[in-house]
Amino acid sequence: MNVAKRNIGLTFDGARCNFRIWAPQATKVQLAIKDKANIDLSRKDYGYWEASHITSIKETDLYWLKIDGKQLPDPASVLQPEGVHGPSQAINLNEKPSSDNWQNIPLKDYIIYELHTGTFSEGGDFEGVAEKLDHLIELGITAIELMPVAAFAGERNWGYDGVLPFAIQASYGGPKALQKLVALCHSKGLAVILDVVYNHFGPEGNYLHEFGPYFTDKYKTPWGKAVNFDDRGSHGVREYIIENAIMWFRDFHIDALRLDAVHAIKDNSASHILQEISKHTDLLSKQTGKPYYLIAECDLNDPRYISPVEQNGLGMHGQWVDEFHHALRVAAGEPKQGYYLDFAGISHLGKAYQDAYVYTGMYSKERDNFFGKSAQGHHGSQFTVFSQNHDHVGNRMLGERSSTLYSFEMQKLLAAAILTAPFVPMLFMGEEWAETNPFLYFIDHSDPDLVEAVRNGRREEFAASHVDGQAPDPKAEDTFNRSKLNWKLLQQAKNANMFQYYKQLIALRKQYTMLQTADLDTVKAYVFQAENSLMIERKCADENKSILCLLNFSSSVQQLSI
Amino acid sequence: MNVAKRNIGLTFDGARCNFRIWAPQATKVQLAIKDKANIDLSRKDYGYWEASHITSIKETDLYWLKIDGKQLPDPASVLQPEGVHGPSQAINLNEKPSSDNWQNIPLKDYIIYELHTGTFSEGGDFEGVAEKLDHLIELGITAIELMPVAAFAGERNWGYDGVLPFAIQASYGGPKALQKLVALCHSKGLAVILDVVYNHFGPEGNYLHEFGPYFTDKYKTPWGKAVNFDDRGSHGVREYIIENAIMWFRDFHIDALRLDAVHAIKDNSASHILQEISKHTDLLSKQTGKPYYLIAECDLNDPRYISPVEQNGLGMHGQWVDEFHHALRVAAGEPKQGYYLDFAGISHLGKAYQDAYVYTGMYSKERDNFFGKSAQGHHGSQFTVFSQNHDHVGNRMLGERSSTLYSFEMQKLLAAAILTAPFVPMLFMGEEWAETNPFLYFIDHSDPDLVEAVRNGRREEFAASHVDGQAPDPKAEDTFNRSKLNWKLLQQAKNANMFQYYKQLIALRKQYTMLQTADLDTVKAYVFQAENSLMIERKCADENKSILCLLNFSSSVQQLSI
Repeated sequence: MNVAKRNIGLTFDGARCNFRIWAPQATKVQLAIKDKANIDLSRKDYGYWEASHITSIKETDLYWLKIDGKQLPDPASVLQPEGVHGPSQAINLNEKPSSDNWQNIPLKDYIIYELHTGTFSEGGDFEGVAEKLDHLIELGITAIELMPVAAFAGERNWGYDGVLPFAIQASYGGPKALQKLVALCHSKGLAVILDVVYNHFGPEGNYLHEFGPYFTDKYKTPWGKAVNFDDRGSHGVREYIIENAIMWFRDFHIDALRLDAVHAIKDNSASHILQEISKHTDLLSKQTGKPYYLIAECDLNDPRYISPVEQNGLGMHGQWVDEFHHALRVAAGEPKQGYYLDFAGISHLGKAYQDAYVYTGMYSKERDNFFGKSAQGHHGSQFTVFSQNHDHVGNRMLGERSSTLYSFEMQKLLAAAILTAPFVPMLFMGEEWAETNPFLYFIDHSDPDLVEAVRNGRREEFAASHVDGQAPDPKAEDTFNRSKLNWKLLQQAKNANMFQYYKQLIALRKQYTMLQTADLDTVKAYVFQAENSLMIERKCADENKSILCLLNFSSSVQQLSI
Repeated sequence: MNVAKRNIGLTFDGARCNFRIWAPQATKVQLAIKDKANIDLSRKDYGYWEASHITSIKETDLYWLKIDGKQLPDPASVLQPEGVHGPSQAINLNEKPSSDNWQNIPLKDYIIYELHTGTFSEGGDFEGVAEKLDHLIELGITAIELMPVAAFAGERNWGYDGVLPFAIQASYGGPKALQKLVALCHSKGLAVILDVVYNHFGPEGNYLHEFGPYFTDKYKTPWGKAVNFDDRGSHGVREYIIENAIMWFRDFHIDALRLDAVHAIKDNSASHILQEISKHTDLLSKQTGKPYYLIAECDLNDPRYISPVEQNGLGMHGQWVDEFHHALRVAAGEPKQGYYLDFAGISHLGKAYQDAYVYTGMYSKERDNFFGKSAQGHHGSQFTVFSQNHDHVGNRMLGERSSTLYSFEMQKLLAAAILTAPFVPMLFMGEEWAETNPFLYFIDHSDPDLVEAVRNGRREEFAASHVDGQAPDPKAEDTFNRSKLNWKLLQQAKNANMFQYYKQLIALRKQYTMLQTADLDTVKAYVFQAENSLMIERKCADENKSILCLLNFSSSVQQLSI
């Protein structure tokens, strides 16, 4: 696969277009351009269909694919102006703002800000994000992380129901607006991480099964049939996903991908799809001379995911560590239920500071298994930590942020725990001013049965965990609107105070190398059980110096003897 | 886990016994010894039940396990004298013939003879095997490989329907007879490989689901629910399987395990079950000072399986290479259908000689995928090759061996191809004298519906591949009896001739280092397409010498220009 150019879908080459799509079971494939003559595609090897030097398609033309007469959106569409069920739109991705002077920043220096485009700003789109970048710069952030932007059904969604992974959600502004936002970020010194979902497709608007064997029943996932990465015909699915990962780097100048729930990607072939993504990303890196990073969400405590491909690793540069969050929240007083059940508070938090993973082979009650493996030998920059993210906030029935769960002082402690960690710290939008609006679960499917199923699913989920009250209606526009950040809060003394605190913490981190990502050997945690306190010693790798971080999770002043 | 002693089931300690079993869902577990009082087991951590210092059980006592009143065979039983549905028998595995002077032989020197205990000798048991060992010694064999001996329903089975992996099939002679056979082999300089099945359990007599979550529906296998190696509660299943692997080495002095179809073992946990088996085997090796080998049957062309655990490999020492067989058989004139479809004959055979795998990332029509990965850097001793084995013979409708499919001269060529290969060669019982009896598929289930299902399955399988005639009835005793070797053939001139030929080939291999397993770098294959011939150059690693093996698959004399 040539990573230098777009290999799937519609590609502009000057005024002409090429088109290539995988539809192995089809007997006739056509491009149906609105108000123009259909173009027959020719069948090529391995189930691909192609047309070259097309002159009749102009930018912004609407088109469909006709698979044996059936009219469908292009699986590699980059824009669906009328939604996921509508026609695709011809967009020239080659004409983009230059980012040539941008060299990315080292992963070890990432300070990440996770944001949801729809609720981050009042406008709810990429332009809205652009307007707020100076706030993030002032805060000290070095990388923004966009929750998924792939086209989903309706206007409102967290992004994990995307069905067209190449299409940029129209209500966010589409591909051109994303290219513009990335260029603006780079001009301000900000890296951009994009959240991508390769483990499942959303429940509405997914037409991929009409094109080929995108799914397999070899494996069961929480979201139904697994994506086919190793069963018959998976070669086309693999190329589709590799091409997608490369597109973000090549055509959008994205700096890093956050790969959603890679533990749900099942692949027992000799070359795991993550290894292939890693190899192709390295190839592109060599061509452009810029580093690109792959950060996996992974729930397996298996360091193989973040080991190099040459060592039979899966080649991810980094991963999220939910266990750090769980231990931290229990230390902060979170009731031990659900996924907190396994966590002991400060002793586990101490372990997480030293070893990244808490469970490294011990018995986990929640999993009823001996779980995980030591990540010894890996660097702190390979682990992203947070005191809250979209999942932990939004998967609560009422979407409460830390701001409404913990005292002001405890919120500051949580921030300090993250921002002095030897890992890559990540904030969730608004936490820097203790935003009090919730971040709720919202969807905007058009299929009434599906909407009802989602509603019932939420109800049952919280009935099972005995939470009082009722889950807000995920389909209601109000649920979405209530989840928007309230930027006006920043003008209030308390919130401004919190913002200044975050700002100073980040400045402190930037000032002292010893507070940044580090070799885990240089981190020592001292647990003071009786005092519910933790002392983290951060040694300087070269000199005989160290910094001590004292974290007092109790409600009173403590005296610690060293 | 302490590998030095038996951790599951009944263990003798002098005149007393200990018992330990995993039954996490049970509320009461008892040992019910025939004609004696029941013994209550105590619940321990992680769902185990134990009793120590039991004095009432004597060797040969019959016993049941009572799980909440339900009477079941012991999952770790070593003998089922009345079959898989009957009681277990108390056997002291500690009293065994000594093998202390035996040090195993290097894997690189293995010349394997695969045999099925039930059909190898007239007696159809371990004693029958013992009587024929001198024949194998004369032939030059260095290791016998026993098809699975774990207890299965009925008296006749290939062994892949085993349901009690610790129990040695009673009709073969049980555990004591196996210990005796292994000791005899060692005294004659023969290593013993045992075929073990960890990817599924047989369809009749499997009571494991009564004890714990041995199965998961996370993965689909050709044989129904997958064995649970990574889902909730899999820790007990993992210990059960690891303990089983170790038992063969520790208590039976088996030298190597052949692990059946490891591609069907699905495990996405941080420590793959094969890695755990490998680590525990290494531990035992350190304690006894003897090497033990793990040889996997694997259909993935993924060298990770045979890479060390320290390099994120799965720690198998070797694997079978079916592709060598397929390429060889197509070179010999096998019609290109079924799994032969993908193979081009001598060009692919040449590749297999050099690279072990044929498919190293190329497109496979049969799999509709780009398949496999190069095994570069691995040693020839990691690959077992054969021109026929139980599967390729027995999965033909009429169970024909090469002897009834190929000319006498072609049979000799096939033998030479295997016995001069840089890999570990394996013969299938009887091929050394061109045995003409078939090796058919046979079972002896007692459940009539199951028997009918197996019959229909065989019929449909061959109907689908358009084979003429009818599949012999797998349940008929005659089908089993017809599959027995006819040792009298050895007295006939033609068969004696073939035996001498094999004997001389093996002697030749032993005489010249250059004909033995080797670094794949030292092997060069020259393909003569027009002459349907292959020249294999085997270089001496140290000196500037080589041996040429000329393989002429055409029906006439050929002149090859070097």
